[in-house]
Amino acid sequence: MRITLLNPNTSRVMTAKIAAAAREVAGPDVEIVAVCPTEGPAAIESHYDEAFAALAVIALIEEDLVAGGSDGYVIACFGDPGLDAARELVDVPVVGIAEAAMHVAALAGRSFGIVTTLSRTLGRADDLVHRYGFDRACVSAYGSGVPVLDLEETGSPAFEVIASFCETAVREDGADVVVLGCAGMADLCRDLTDRVGVPVIDGVAASVGLVATMARMGVGTSKRDEYARPPRWPALAG
Amino acid sequence: MRITLLNPNTSRVMTAKIAAAAREVAGPDVEIVAVCPTEGPAAIESHYDEAFAALAVIALIEEDLVAGGSDGYVIACFGDPGLDAARELVDVPVVGIAEAAMHVAALAGRSFGIVTTLSRTLGRADDLVHRYGFDRACVSAYGSGVPVLDLEETGSPAFEVIASFCETAVREDGADVVVLGCAGMADLCRDLTDRVGVPVIDGVAASVGLVATMARMGVGTSKRDEYARPPRWPALAG
Amino acid sequence: MRITLLNPNTSRVMTAKIAAAAREVAGPDVEIVAVCPTEGPAAIESHYDEAFAALAVIALIEEDLVAGGSDGYVIACFGDPGLDAARELVDVPVVGIAEAAMHVAALAGRSFGIVTTLSRTLGRADDLVHRYGFDRACVSAYGSGVPVLDLEETGSPAFEVIASFCETAVREDGADVVVLGCAGMADLCRDLTDRVGVPVIDGVAASVGLVATMARMGVGTSKRDEYARPPRWPALAG
Amino acid sequence: MRITLLNPNTSRVMTAKIAAAAREVAGPDVEIVAVCPTEGPAAIESHYDEAFAALAVIALIEEDLVAGGSDGYVIACFGDPGLDAARELVDVPVVGIAEAAMHVAALAGRSFGIVTTLSRTLGRADDLVHRYGFDRACVSAYGSGVPVLDLEETGSPAFEVIASFCETAVREDGADVVVLGCAGMADLCRDLTDRVGVPVIDGVAASVGLVATMARMGVGTSKRDEYARPPRWPALAG
Amino acid sequence: MRITLLNPNTSRVMTAKIAAAAREVAGPDVEIVAVCPTEGPAAIESHYDEAFAALAVIALIEEDLVAGGSDGYVIACFGDPGLDAARELVDVPVVGIAEAAMHVAALAGRSFGIVTTLSRTLGRADDLVHRYGFDRACVSAYGSGVPVLDLEETGSPAFEVIASFCETAVREDGADVVVLGCAGMADLCRDLTDRVGVPVIDGVAASVGLVATMARMGVGTSKRDEYARPPRWPALAG
Amino acid sequence: MRITLLNPNTSRVMTAKIAAAAREVAGPDVEIVAVCPTEGPAAIESHYDEAFAALAVIALIEEDLVAGGSDGYVIACFGDPGLDAARELVDVPVVGIAEAAMHVAALAGRSFGIVTTLSRTLGRADDLVHRYGFDRACVSAYGSGVPVLDLEETGSPAFEVIASFCETAVREDGADVVVLGCAGMADLCRDLTDRVGVPVIDGVAASVGLVATMARMGVGTSKRDEYARPPRWPALAG
Repeated sequence: MRITLLNPNTSRVMTAKIAAAAREVAGPDVEIVAVCPTEGPAAIESHYDEAFAALAVIALIEEDLVAGGSDGYVIACFGDPGLDAARELVDVPVVGIAEAAMHVAALAGRSFGIVTTLSRTLGRADDLVHRYGFDRACVSAYGSGVPVLDLEETGSPAFEVIASFCETAVREDGADVVVLGCAGMADLCRDLTDRVGVPVIDGVAASVGLVATMARMGVGTSKRDEYARPPRWPALAG
Repeated sequence: MRITLLNPNTSRVMTAKIAAAAREVAGPDVEIVAVCPTEGPAAIESHYDEAFAALAVIALIEEDLVAGGSDGYVIACFGDPGLDAARELVDVPVVGIAEAAMHVAALAGRSFGIVTTLSRTLGRADDLVHRYGFDRACVSAYGSGVPVLDLEETGSPAFEVIASFCETAVREDGADVVVLGCAGMADLCRDLTDRVGVPVIDGVAASVGLVATMARMGVGTSKRDEYARPPRWPALAG
Repeated sequence: MRITLLNPNTSRVMTAKIAAAAREVAGPDVEIVAVCPTEGPAAIESHYDEAFAALAVIALIEEDLVAGGSDGYVIACFGDPGLDAARELVDVPVVGIAEAAMHVAALAGRSFGIVTTLSRTLGRADDLVHRYGFDRACVSAYGSGVPVLDLEETGSPAFEVIASFCETAVREDGADVVVLGCAGMADLCRDLTDRVGVPVIDGVAASVGLVATMARMGVGTSKRDEYARPPRWPALAG
Repeated sequence: MRITLLNPNTSRVMTAKIAAAAREVAGPDVEIVAVCPTEGPAAIESHYDEAFAALAVIALIEEDLVAGGSDGYVIACFGDPGLDAARELVDVPVVGIAEAAMHVAALAGRSFGIVTTLSRTLGRADDLVHRYGFDRACVSAYGSGVPVLDLEETGSPAFEVIASFCETAVREDGADVVVLGCAGMADLCRDLTDRVGVPVIDGVAASVGLVATMARMGVGTSKRDEYARPPRWPALAG
Repeated sequence: MRITLLNPNTSRVMTAKIAAAAREVAGPDVEIVAVCPTEGPAAIESHYDEAFAALAVIALIEEDLVAGGSDGYVIACFGDPGLDAARELVDVPVVGIAEAAMHVAALAGRSFGIVTTLSRTLGRADDLVHRYGFDRACVSAYGSGVPVLDLEETGSPAFEVIASFCETAVREDGADVVVLGCAGMADLCRDLTDRVGVPVIDGVAASVGLVATMARMGVGTSKRDEYARPPRWPALAG
Repeated sequence: MRITLLNPNTSRVMTAKIAAAAREVAGPDVEIVAVCPTEGPAAIESHYDEAFAALAVIALIEEDLVAGGSDGYVIACFGDPGLDAARELVDVPVVGIAEAAMHVAALAGRSFGIVTTLSRTLGRADDLVHRYGFDRACVSAYGSGVPVLDLEETGSPAFEVIASFCETAVREDGADVVVLGCAGMADLCRDLTDRVGVPVIDGVAASVGLVATMARMGVGTSKRDEYARPPRWPALAG
């Protein structure tokens, strides 16, 4: 089984980190590919960035389809940009890391908190929480103020800042679980779990597991109406 | 006061129709400009189309800003594509025609139904209904099966089909008001109102009125955090 | 176009203030009339007051209908008293200042806070927030403790108190926008916007804009069933 | 213990019927008094009527307070008019028949349907369903088209019409319980229960039981803030 | 009329206390019986305990049915364990003390707070709040840290701890009413009401009143589908 | 990795079927064990049955813990009986098949319908839909009238009945996906998918995938407060 991770920003460092996180949890029979665009925003930290990210997701899937396609796709950006459009283009599963992280968090406890990068992205996170049905489960969401690209450097002071917000979510807001709100935090997940004492969820790992589960079940994207091929899509079929 | 209508598809016929609908309701002191991109989808009928539409909205605003900017913007496509990104780029009001139509409908009665083009777009409409808080007010939503571009020709059989769905919304679902789910239906609005016997709302007219109201009040887009200028925005400020 | 503002309390000072706020935002083609009853509560600060206010709204509309009627009505009291009854009596638009302020606030940002007069009125405000669908958008509501009639005197210490609650809504609760919860605060709106740095919404101005928009669109109150003329209404038709 | 039932319409026939229904379920230690105004609407079938009904409720309580007051009050009209205002005026319990019927229905099954008089009152019923938190429990609501005053005559064809809507609620909508949406239906309750085969709830009986329960528990209306005496209330205290 | 109170833990002290609280509010025509199992958990403070409590409720009802049955049942444990199963077994009313307390609290004010024993039970309380439709009414819920069995001793320091949480709910969270989250707190109710100054609700008293009300109305449990006798129930019918 | 499936009814045929469905989707590194109690209900078709099922789940986990424990548990009954209690007893993941099926369904489309056995179990299904946050996603739920034990025989007429309800959910209610509401339907899943043309989800397969995903991620059940070991749990720790 081949799962392709779509990182919609141009950071090769982050793309490599995402691939590593994915491989750590993929079963022995899962091949992980991770790709990113050569042009576009270096990080997705605004609705403006996100509009370009959606286009990047579409283009990366189209390239992968030309090359033969995959058994499932992961959108490796916490805003799940282009998720609905991606589901139109393929029959196989497509999962965003925000939805994946929230679904897994909901199975590990009653409630979760989200710790993400800039506070300006919390509006988008809130939209996703409601869209996916986790209004009751999600008890708080924090912007840590750490920009996405600062997460590229391992050992940066970012860890302490993020850990502190995770602890607030658990101690003050009663979160049973913490969801990390950026693909770039994937490598912090284990250490944060140890520090905070509750499950801390990385959406990259979660989405790889969910896509693999669906693929093994033979469950893809429903092509009933909304997610059927778009009328004006020129590319070859998946 | 100058209000610019952004039609994110490439149809000049529809752009002209939108401008006409806007001018009919604009107060005497309002100048209406309507623009559309030269490239991109001819109609917005899928999430795939919508991803390109968001980029078109951004580009059209950037062009308008270079040319001096406007006192407010209308996104003249029922999916309100690029609305959040557009709000990041300017200080003035930005209103989508879906939200505008729903807000006005909520003032004209307790409940409304939506009649739109293809049923595959109902998922997006449902997301907007929830995002804007109209879950209780919106009692039904129908895809008429009429493609957007069929609406270009006046006097097409589209009118009868759409009228029939409007009547179903009122008679079967108890809708007090009907919201038209496509900018291309703007010219059908009066005739549909006469036919159905309840207010039928065109979002283009509604959004022009709302943007003008906000501009006269001195109310623009809050630049507090989420809608502040995006960190990587290269263009000149609005 | 003639819009009549119905102030359901007996304060002539406040009625004049409301008319001034309305005229400031009315387009050049809008005539503003503001009326109040000669008997009844001097301010609406309880459910008890509100019951009398609803009757005053009805009586003021009946008087206006006798005199020829208007193109739209504004209920200029933040509890929107008598709104449903008023909609039964006329075909033209009727908008309450609470709903108007919330609708406009929802277009200027993702979230708003409400700052009103006495905390005992917050229950009514909460009912309206839910009735109109703004549960997600409204992030906080404060009673400032300033009685309605203290707002009559310009330059009173009320401004500082209200400004401080507005700032709390923005800084602590993350409100993008502030809604003023009393028609008597209309003249503070501009200064509060300057002070707080986000849009501060006065419902009087908002409702005039919304009624004018609806009138220009030819959209009145749906007379389908709930808002048809009441069976026992003795007065002449609108 | 003395419980006063406030019928806000002027029908003495209905007032007597309400008193009889109340006495049937009142415990041996409960004295039932039922009053109605001498002026005002003969039936409450519109928001317009309801505005007058709220004033009638206030006046009837004020008269009762002058005469020594009661241990609890029932508002015997399905729109619960004046409920919030009435709670401000007294320390003892005040319960509306709509809320009482819904609370008891929720204890007799998972779901209920409402069968009321004119369809134009369904909007008010919907507001109450949401206000009281029964959105999930209430699975349908029907206007039977039977005017309130037709219910005065026992043995009228109204029974068959109402029974048929009750059966629809149970058979089609899966309602476990039926709530009768008018105080004037109190005497039909037993026969409807026999006919439909599920509990059919009359709000008059329900509210008498709830008020008596609260009085026996020593639980009145919380006077914390919203329901404290209104600032401008001239009458003597309860 | 005979109402049987089912205490699903083995504490005879608490069973006696519950019976006393019930008798204080029961009308003169109500016989109160209180029973508890001889085996099982001494207190219900976890989901694990609650699974055994549900079985105890079933067994106690089956025993009572063998002995002739009652006119109604109260489940005297704040988690309402076994409520749905109990409703399947009998035709008469069955009410849990959590639901009873919340229903009565909703009639005594707009909002309530819950003060219960261990914080680990708050998840169950939250489930019930949502199940019963009191999400808006319930403004806060506190685990006092007082174990159930500490409540057996009158005059323990538990009173001060619980009173302090009640005050927090009222002063900080704006609760109009406080709901006590344990049958073992029944005897603290009056003193807490005096101390906190708002109605404090004991679910035992509330549920006795509600069951008696339903019995007097002739309203039992709807046997339509979900609550019909279970297919595999071996016991004799109620 | 070893995952234990807990079938809380006594049917060995169904237990074997569940094990087979699980093994089909388990990755190559997953050992599947399936167990059932020797006593208790033969099928779980009422709240009464479910109370016993919860005890069975607890007992089966306790036995497995004595034997060394597993890396994760699946509760193989659509009511997810005993789920909260099971989570208290272990550190590893515990997933119910109802929640698993709904989570996976939500990733395969916007909306799903549920087709289950007896209509009397729909109330429990509705509770779970709300508890897990899928109110918007779940568009319909049908009881097929097929008793659980009829599903034991392959090739029974049950397939046609269930297929017809699946088609109704898709064609009439617009469900993108169908969730099967009984572990005993696991072997029908592929054929139903072929017949209906949209993904049909079996919760057994879904839950095995989710538990394996969590185990590979090192994510277990949060032991923060609610799901910590119960105070009175006598058994040895997991």
